[in-house]
Amino acid sequence: MIHSDRILMGPGPSNPYPEVIEALTRPVLGHLDPEFISLLDETNERLRTVWRTSNLLTFPISATGSAGMEAAFVNFVQTGDVVVVGVNGVFGNRMCDVAARAGATVIPVEAEWGQAIDPQRLLDAHPNPQIIAVVHAETSTGVRNDIAPLGANKGGALLVVDCVTSLGGIPVLIDDWNVDIAYSGTQKCLGIPPGLAPLTVSERAMERVVPTPQSWYLDLNMIKDYVTGDGTRAYHHTAPISMLYGLHAGLGVVLEEGLDQAWERHRLCGDELHRRLPEIGFGLWAQQGHRLPELTTVTLPEGLDDVEGRRTLLERYGIEVGGGLGPVAGKVWRIGCMGHTARMRNVKMLLGALEDLVTATR
Amino acid sequence: MIHSDRILMGPGPSNPYPEVIEALTRPVLGHLDPEFISLLDETNERLRTVWRTSNLLTFPISATGSAGMEAAFVNFVQTGDVVVVGVNGVFGNRMCDVAARAGATVIPVEAEWGQAIDPQRLLDAHPNPQIIAVVHAETSTGVRNDIAPLGANKGGALLVVDCVTSLGGIPVLIDDWNVDIAYSGTQKCLGIPPGLAPLTVSERAMERVVPTPQSWYLDLNMIKDYVTGDGTRAYHHTAPISMLYGLHAGLGVVLEEGLDQAWERHRLCGDELHRRLPEIGFGLWAQQGHRLPELTTVTLPEGLDDVEGRRTLLERYGIEVGGGLGPVAGKVWRIGCMGHTARMRNVKMLLGALEDLVTATR
Repeated sequence: MIHSDRILMGPGPSNPYPEVIEALTRPVLGHLDPEFISLLDETNERLRTVWRTSNLLTFPISATGSAGMEAAFVNFVQTGDVVVVGVNGVFGNRMCDVAARAGATVIPVEAEWGQAIDPQRLLDAHPNPQIIAVVHAETSTGVRNDIAPLGANKGGALLVVDCVTSLGGIPVLIDDWNVDIAYSGTQKCLGIPPGLAPLTVSERAMERVVPTPQSWYLDLNMIKDYVTGDGTRAYHHTAPISMLYGLHAGLGVVLEEGLDQAWERHRLCGDELHRRLPEIGFGLWAQQGHRLPELTTVTLPEGLDDVEGRRTLLERYGIEVGGGLGPVAGKVWRIGCMGHTARMRNVKMLLGALEDLVTATR
Repeated sequence: MIHSDRILMGPGPSNPYPEVIEALTRPVLGHLDPEFISLLDETNERLRTVWRTSNLLTFPISATGSAGMEAAFVNFVQTGDVVVVGVNGVFGNRMCDVAARAGATVIPVEAEWGQAIDPQRLLDAHPNPQIIAVVHAETSTGVRNDIAPLGANKGGALLVVDCVTSLGGIPVLIDDWNVDIAYSGTQKCLGIPPGLAPLTVSERAMERVVPTPQSWYLDLNMIKDYVTGDGTRAYHHTAPISMLYGLHAGLGVVLEEGLDQAWERHRLCGDELHRRLPEIGFGLWAQQGHRLPELTTVTLPEGLDDVEGRRTLLERYGIEVGGGLGPVAGKVWRIGCMGHTARMRNVKMLLGALEDLVTATR
């Protein structure tokens, strides 16, 4: 089955770094092979650098980003625990769903889609919640929510942060911000195909881990003996070896470039998109001051049809952009510029194609 | 980081088919790209052929085999449901743990490790269980449990079968055997790296699916709209694109060879190992008549040390075999011959190395 070579400028996956693809082809090792354990240890050390944390329990969950979300709740929520969740898009809603399935009493704190959540509203929502949870970079709206004030004032609560679309693209400072539990995905700003969910958990959080979480697969009590054990490692489940090679290599690319430089590269691409898209006729949708450089959301110029426009981009130019979700389906596009895709050449390519597209509708 | 090229003759992962490794390098598509949806549909059709089923809901869970097990229970167990589980190894025990976390009242039916479970004992364990569950090929013991009598006499129960180490290596006949829910892994007899868990679910089982399972990530109510939807597919989570390319390609290799021929290839390798290993001094451990060709378990010749012997195999010959688990740790080896590894040349290579190893201890 032949398939096309796309430029992936939707909300993820992004195009992977060539070094990552090369790494996927390396000979498979057993999950208990000493050479594989060394590679896993080095991968987790690289993750600590990218997360800006010293958390010992830092490793990739063997599934995609949403399983990272599930791991962040099922391991820390006991029945009846109060969980305050910021909701200004699909992934805040998903957090509510996942936390409720773990038995939480969920207190959603809503903000309009496209707007950021005032951290003070999250802090004021309950006097003594077990968990405060928020999405750092809302993939459905292109909005960045502030994290630092939550960590500084969380009190006894654990702070859970969804960094699926932020890690590697904008500053994520787990230790400086006092984040207890954070998860991400590989297929966004890290430039790796989808399949793993990097997770980091503070010592403080691990003191409160549920003894027998409802999920066996995501049970951190058992997984930690495999990923952080001294000497011998206890088998839990078979690690996804080839994808881990990809993660190891992708983190290597990011760290060789320098994390600050990678952030800067994402910022420059985002700035150019934010500057040029309104000139072509698109409207910037996310709240000013909270716009993600790696994911730009826009309303469409009059006359440009959502489905037909995206189909033309895909078929004529081989460029994928994302449609809107939920209440803004059909009205908003999500333009990603992440990981290896975050190059000025791709920005120029997309802007050129969009100019043609808009001109054709006039 | 340089690493070695092993011959993987442990309990999995096995060496992947070259066509699979090549497929991992293909350009990443978005998970809603029409070309990717076509590839997913074709993959699921290939899975139906390999499972010998017409079940519509046949697809790979986006995680490793144990997540397949979790999906098989959390979607069908309500609090207090009676689940009869056959236990003659690690994976039967794991089923009990996973089912209990989903709220089941578990009735374990135990057999000695290394022995098969009498199906009649499973059928007699409870007059009206909601689920009867058993491992087809016990990866911890090398024993095959009989499935057909369970499907023929299950009554109102759903039949759940773990086919992680059987699918592709020995006959697995989902429809003929009346299996309701079965899961596997990619890294055993299918010759694909670890990372996905093929799952198949009967119409009868889907009529009893739990409306809101405790796991969001594994919720079949939502996933089915992505994997089996007509026309538009509802986004649930981002599919692990590259691994799916690998699965698609690996199933292609198996079906091009012919499933019967693949079974026969595994059988011939197993027969040769079963014939020759005792001549070298190893004892066949699994019950005669229930020995898996793809996974041979042996007791060690006197004087051969478990850890040192496996280390020598790995370091001097680059061959991995597996140690024993649980009560037989240190006493038993698990010799896998699965997927692309299941070639007579590898059998000869291992036997030669083992002869040297045993001779050296005399």
